[in-house]
Amino acid sequence: MKYVYSFNEGSKEMRNLLGGKGANLAEMTKIGLPVPFGFTISTDACKKYIEDGNTLCDEIVNEAFEHLAELEEVMGKKFGSIDNPLLVSVRSGAPVSMPGMMDTILNLGLNDVSVEGLAKKTGNDRFAYDSYRRFIQMFGDVVMEIKKSKFDEVFNAQKKKVGAEFDVDLSTDDLKEIIKGYKELVKAELGREFPQDPKEQLLEAIAAVFRSWNNERAILYRKINNISASLGTAVNVQSMVFGNTGDNSGTGVAFTRNPANGENAIFGEFLVNAQGEDVVAGIRTPQPISEMKDAFPEVYAQFEDVASILENHYKDMQDMEFTVEDNKLFMLQTRNGKRTAAAAVKVAVDLVNEGLIDKETAIMRIEPDQISQLLHPTFDADELAKATAVAKGLPASPGAATGEICFSADDASAAVEAGKKVILVREETSPEDLAGMIAAEGILTARGGMTSHAAVVARGMGKCCVAGCKDITVDEAGKTLEVGGKKYHEGQQISLNGTDGNVYLEAIKTMAPELSGDFGTIMSWADEIRTLKVRTNADNPRDAKQAVEFGAEGIGLCRTEHMFFEEERIPKIRRMILAETEAERREALAGLLPYQKEDFKGIYKAMGERPVTIRLLDPPLHEFLPKTEDDMRQLSEQFGIPYEKIVAKTIELHEFNPMLGHRGCRLAVTYPEIAEMQTEAIITAALEVSAEEGLDIVPEIMVPLVGIDNELKFVKKVIDETAAKCFEAAGRELKYMVGTMIEIPRAALTADAIAEDAEFFSFGTNDLTQMGFGFSRDDTGAIIKEYTSNGVLAADPFQSLDQVGIGKLVRMAVEDGRKTRPNIKLGICGEHGGDPASIHFCNEVGLNYVSCSPFRVPIARLAAAQAAIESK
Amino acid sequence: MKYVYSFNEGSKEMRNLLGGKGANLAEMTKIGLPVPFGFTISTDACKKYIEDGNTLCDEIVNEAFEHLAELEEVMGKKFGSIDNPLLVSVRSGAPVSMPGMMDTILNLGLNDVSVEGLAKKTGNDRFAYDSYRRFIQMFGDVVMEIKKSKFDEVFNAQKKKVGAEFDVDLSTDDLKEIIKGYKELVKAELGREFPQDPKEQLLEAIAAVFRSWNNERAILYRKINNISASLGTAVNVQSMVFGNTGDNSGTGVAFTRNPANGENAIFGEFLVNAQGEDVVAGIRTPQPISEMKDAFPEVYAQFEDVASILENHYKDMQDMEFTVEDNKLFMLQTRNGKRTAAAAVKVAVDLVNEGLIDKETAIMRIEPDQISQLLHPTFDADELAKATAVAKGLPASPGAATGEICFSADDASAAVEAGKKVILVREETSPEDLAGMIAAEGILTARGGMTSHAAVVARGMGKCCVAGCKDITVDEAGKTLEVGGKKYHEGQQISLNGTDGNVYLEAIKTMAPELSGDFGTIMSWADEIRTLKVRTNADNPRDAKQAVEFGAEGIGLCRTEHMFFEEERIPKIRRMILAETEAERREALAGLLPYQKEDFKGIYKAMGERPVTIRLLDPPLHEFLPKTEDDMRQLSEQFGIPYEKIVAKTIELHEFNPMLGHRGCRLAVTYPEIAEMQTEAIITAALEVSAEEGLDIVPEIMVPLVGIDNELKFVKKVIDETAAKCFEAAGRELKYMVGTMIEIPRAALTADAIAEDAEFFSFGTNDLTQMGFGFSRDDTGAIIKEYTSNGVLAADPFQSLDQVGIGKLVRMAVEDGRKTRPNIKLGICGEHGGDPASIHFCNEVGLNYVSCSPFRVPIARLAAAQAAIESK
Repeated sequence: MKYVYSFNEGSKEMRNLLGGKGANLAEMTKIGLPVPFGFTISTDACKKYIEDGNTLCDEIVNEAFEHLAELEEVMGKKFGSIDNPLLVSVRSGAPVSMPGMMDTILNLGLNDVSVEGLAKKTGNDRFAYDSYRRFIQMFGDVVMEIKKSKFDEVFNAQKKKVGAEFDVDLSTDDLKEIIKGYKELVKAELGREFPQDPKEQLLEAIAAVFRSWNNERAILYRKINNISASLGTAVNVQSMVFGNTGDNSGTGVAFTRNPANGENAIFGEFLVNAQGEDVVAGIRTPQPISEMKDAFPEVYAQFEDVASILENHYKDMQDMEFTVEDNKLFMLQTRNGKRTAAAAVKVAVDLVNEGLIDKETAIMRIEPDQISQLLHPTFDADELAKATAVAKGLPASPGAATGEICFSADDASAAVEAGKKVILVREETSPEDLAGMIAAEGILTARGGMTSHAAVVARGMGKCCVAGCKDITVDEAGKTLEVGGKKYHEGQQISLNGTDGNVYLEAIKTMAPELSGDFGTIMSWADEIRTLKVRTNADNPRDAKQAVEFGAEGIGLCRTEHMFFEEERIPKIRRMILAETEAERREALAGLLPYQKEDFKGIYKAMGERPVTIRLLDPPLHEFLPKTEDDMRQLSEQFGIPYEKIVAKTIELHEFNPMLGHRGCRLAVTYPEIAEMQTEAIITAALEVSAEEGLDIVPEIMVPLVGIDNELKFVKKVIDETAAKCFEAAGRELKYMVGTMIEIPRAALTADAIAEDAEFFSFGTNDLTQMGFGFSRDDTGAIIKEYTSNGVLAADPFQSLDQVGIGKLVRMAVEDGRKTRPNIKLGICGEHGGDPASIHFCNEVGLNYVSCSPFRVPIARLAAAQAAIESK
Repeated sequence: MKYVYSFNEGSKEMRNLLGGKGANLAEMTKIGLPVPFGFTISTDACKKYIEDGNTLCDEIVNEAFEHLAELEEVMGKKFGSIDNPLLVSVRSGAPVSMPGMMDTILNLGLNDVSVEGLAKKTGNDRFAYDSYRRFIQMFGDVVMEIKKSKFDEVFNAQKKKVGAEFDVDLSTDDLKEIIKGYKELVKAELGREFPQDPKEQLLEAIAAVFRSWNNERAILYRKINNISASLGTAVNVQSMVFGNTGDNSGTGVAFTRNPANGENAIFGEFLVNAQGEDVVAGIRTPQPISEMKDAFPEVYAQFEDVASILENHYKDMQDMEFTVEDNKLFMLQTRNGKRTAAAAVKVAVDLVNEGLIDKETAIMRIEPDQISQLLHPTFDADELAKATAVAKGLPASPGAATGEICFSADDASAAVEAGKKVILVREETSPEDLAGMIAAEGILTARGGMTSHAAVVARGMGKCCVAGCKDITVDEAGKTLEVGGKKYHEGQQISLNGTDGNVYLEAIKTMAPELSGDFGTIMSWADEIRTLKVRTNADNPRDAKQAVEFGAEGIGLCRTEHMFFEEERIPKIRRMILAETEAERREALAGLLPYQKEDFKGIYKAMGERPVTIRLLDPPLHEFLPKTEDDMRQLSEQFGIPYEKIVAKTIELHEFNPMLGHRGCRLAVTYPEIAEMQTEAIITAALEVSAEEGLDIVPEIMVPLVGIDNELKFVKKVIDETAAKCFEAAGRELKYMVGTMIEIPRAALTADAIAEDAEFFSFGTNDLTQMGFGFSRDDTGAIIKEYTSNGVLAADPFQSLDQVGIGKLVRMAVEDGRKTRPNIKLGICGEHGGDPASIHFCNEVGLNYVSCSPFRVPIARLAAAQAAIESK
């Protein structure tokens, strides 16, 4: 077993063995770029260290010292030398980026002797002793695990003693005093001297990196990000170069292209006569990299070459760190650069056009979640920089919005009619706020989670929403908003960033999204590649049109209940609920039929011949009843029904656990006349539109909340009989399908039986997750947050489908459903339909389509393409 | 294919082909008993009839006529003859008893000619014409499907015309008029004459029986009782004998043993000069069968022989129908007799002692559900006969109870202390009513289902309970109970029958149960045979002792939350909930520790070395908080906590779907100190009792509501660390186990991972059913009732485990759990643990034990034995 590799022994393919940083240092060395020499102690050594009960075995120590000797020889320097001391950096580097571990120790090799050598070499006593001081402090903290605050005490005592205001006011002698104090501190804490032997320093530092692989933060990070604990980390030992030896030196960070917009030009920052840590510490402001061209024309030309070589070699935009020591360029790191969505799209398309990568690689380069940035308004960067967030809520629906505060749906609608732009601010929203939500630029709620009504509806509309903002107190009646002890009133300016959850109590200019050429190009490539269809969840022609613009190939979920909340209709559905006989109920339903028919006609027209799945009424009836006494009294007057009867009905319909109550197809079994009315609307609308527009429309009627095959049989019979009547009345027929949601665990468990009657399944993974986990979305937000932060859960299962548990139900249902009906159409219409990881899962288990909110359609198209590429 | 069988061609083994009735008639014929000759048209003929689109094919018709000819020859009579007419009965008879189908047509063969023959034969014109009149009416109704009311109109018109008050006042001529009117009715309705050809009558009657196999009532019955539609029914055609030819004739029904108490003596009723239908019509009161001995000494002796032969032949108590025609005995039917639980037990034990059957057969003879009759008080039969039920609720917990009405737990406790017997009457009960429920003889609630708090707790106590009695209105504050427009007050007498749900507003004497010798014998045989262990659900020493008396082998579920509701403790748990810091919470918990420890010590002492599974705190914390303003204000004073804070906490803890909320192990993850306190109580109690009593106690600590393996890991760590501390403090250790409920679908789906940490699984099939079906027990009682009555569900899945869906989860968890941990202990502790069908399932999937309420332990022991026998 070989544990240690020189930089000239490795390559970028050896990421698992050498870690990301080590592999790239080796790769750069291999292709002849100027890299300060060094070696990497492998992840195998880390595993061996852990296996041996946190000890470095002799083999590792010996190999490390052999490579150290080689390093001394190559560099012509000597560890601990007073003349030409070898100093090294020790850096961790895992196969995947891993915050939480020990990161970096610089200038290892410094001791009471070599500090003099450094002073000579740099001609700067103060720098040498400050470096030594910093080294002891860093080593003491991260390797020896002495509390950082204890070093600060020593340091501040000296500052106080000599009356220094800033650190830079300390003299070399002061620093020497501090070093003395640090060493005493180490002795007092650990009962031993600070190690003067650089080799001892090195071994301790290596062990500390390995140890840090299993510290709490690292374990938690791995748990949350699903990273295997068995990977281990590598340690990179690299000879130090100094960018602070004078005006011939410097240090910088640069990208091969602009990471903000993707422009093909080197982009970065540079600082003359400085080390990397000076840039980080923010003591001096770095210059744009372009100015390096003037200061170091030759070095810059060389750097341009290196950047070009690296990009051609890695075939991606690189993020590089480098140092210039005495006019000599040294590369310290390279890696694929992080970038904005706009840059990601442009770089990917450019690289294909430049012939560096193919379309599939380009598709794989883009984070699907990131591109939602491109679909929503954003704040003007300059104005945003000047604004101050006063509260933070959940980033429930992305985008930026600005407008006047409004506290009710009615006020919002009125203000918008008066030509204003408004933000609707509510304790939480309910279906009755729908009109106000449509009118508003954005929605802010004080209560509710990522899947609260406000969040779900806003995402559906692609409208900016910050939800569950606990920092604010909303007094809806008094029309005030309190935050940070200050009260704000209706009409005052407010801005929301739904992408990060920030709330600003001031106006900030917003910028409309540009669905530019590169974006269109990437999307068309994605469509060529993917096999999974992408539909949308849309309840009205507006959303349907929006989704088609974003590339939706059909509607996977048209909820019919939202339609009932509109102003003219809600009284009619209430009348239906309050009916005491079937005849009364039928009368009320007959009043709703024309509305429903027009709804569906509008949607069919917007979708053309694309498939449209319409779900029958789903929510419990009590959701439609008024909640307040005033509203109930008003209803009583409106219908001449005694107030007491309305109260009694409300009590009768009350449920302890409405999520598990009288809803979904249970309504249709109890009141078949509701399903009849809806079927009539669906079928007659399709008959009319197909005649009017000459379209071939095949409505897909979806029965919700089926848990028992007989439920579907029952409702299907109602649908088929009603459809037959419609055909007879029209003298024409059309094809339609009847299918079901698979959203109750038992439906997934008995999918074989349910598929006898279902021509399609649409997985309702929201409810499947609720019931499968026993988590009410309304109640367990805090618990899930606790679980994801303490690692009990790797991710919020409402955000990303739990593939192990809930996914098992989906797999079973897919297999069993196809066994009964090989050509059954399978889709998903829960929130997961727009989540990339979940889309991969859907592709893997062989669904035919995913359905998501209009604004997630492009994301789903991209994710589906990536899934197709990966499954090859 | 042979479609028709003479009675001398069949046997009792041919039940599927000949139906139950036909097979037994053939069997009696075969063993030489006097059976009026006849033949059976088989179930194959029925299937063929349905296959042929409801037509009798030529083969069936020809075979039937061949057998008819044989019958005429054997009987020496002729169909339609004026001298000696052959009359037959036509009866349906399916392989399993099947109400809902067409049942019987008597005297088929009567027409305008043969009616004269019958008159001659019986010497009774009126009887002959009345028989003909009845025959036309019956045939017209069930075969020709003419509304019965139309015949009644004709009949009543004649009565009115001649001024007859009763049917018997009609003369022969009147009857002839009616017959004329009936025939005209048939002609008017169907446009054809009433068939005069007896063969035509016969074919129509056979077809009508076959047709009735698929009528709505029959289909529904099969659906509900899970009977295959493919079985079909047979038709029995049997020559008529007449028990009404004079005083030498008669008819009777008898059992070979007493079906009420099992006594070994013929038991039944007899009527001289009568037909079976006279007994049924209730026109005359039959005599006890013993009197037949005097009236027909020789025939009775013959009948005694027949009874003895039948019992020895069938090796079970028989239920027989017979007719005596002119001193000649004819057997018309025999079948195994229905019996009470007491009789079932006695007959089974006696038959074993008599050497007729073996123990296994005896065990199989007893309906497990039935024996609960033997464990509870019953009403005195004579007093019950005189009482009138005024309301009916759900039979939530069996037994009979009588006492004074009480409307609150406190009143009940006080009254009982004053030496009274009371019935607690509540709108619905809550955990705070516990003391009152313990004090009361029985519980009546106006609201709640079979699994409401009142029902579950009462069943646990074996206390009579009628729940969800919608007929009554309870005014708890006003202390009145209204039913049928009458008001009843505190102190008035009330009686409940928890076995059938009847409520009486009067006192009825109750009788204590007798666990007699025969019962003990059956139970000991069951224990010899079964392999499944039977534990009990018990939360206190009283229930634990009761269960051990009933044969419980351990505690499968000790709920710890009930303990917290006792008067001294509830303030402490409330203090804990209202705590704002961990320290405050720990202080409150410390106050609860001594109580919990004493609870567990008492339970350990009651159970000896039998295993005890203790479940950590399960319900959401808001269940412990007061609900009314008064109670909140009182709490505020008690602890000096502002009232507003208590209200705020109540609001904070409110949940939309508490069933899917912050409960179970989620509490232990959020507040580990609760689990710590409970573990300390469990372990230290075990240490103390094991020392005091010299017992080897191995507590089983059960973590509820686990859905994620990491939850169990988290809580197990808390338990293990706490136990280690207890052992250290005591200087002694003991073995304990940590396991989990499998009650969340995802737990079943990920049982392999959960078994890494769980030493046992206890299936909580109540919650598994709730979440698996998406049915809240509190809300969906009405829906489930609708579903079971319209056949969407075959049974209430909360009563009997849904083996197809929820059972699939259980099977998966059993298999996956054992894969990870082959010796994992598996049990069930939901309500299903006491349901015989579910126990069969548990035996089949290989659980180690079932756990049920104390009063279901004997039922479970018997069901487990039956399952073991059946699985052989």
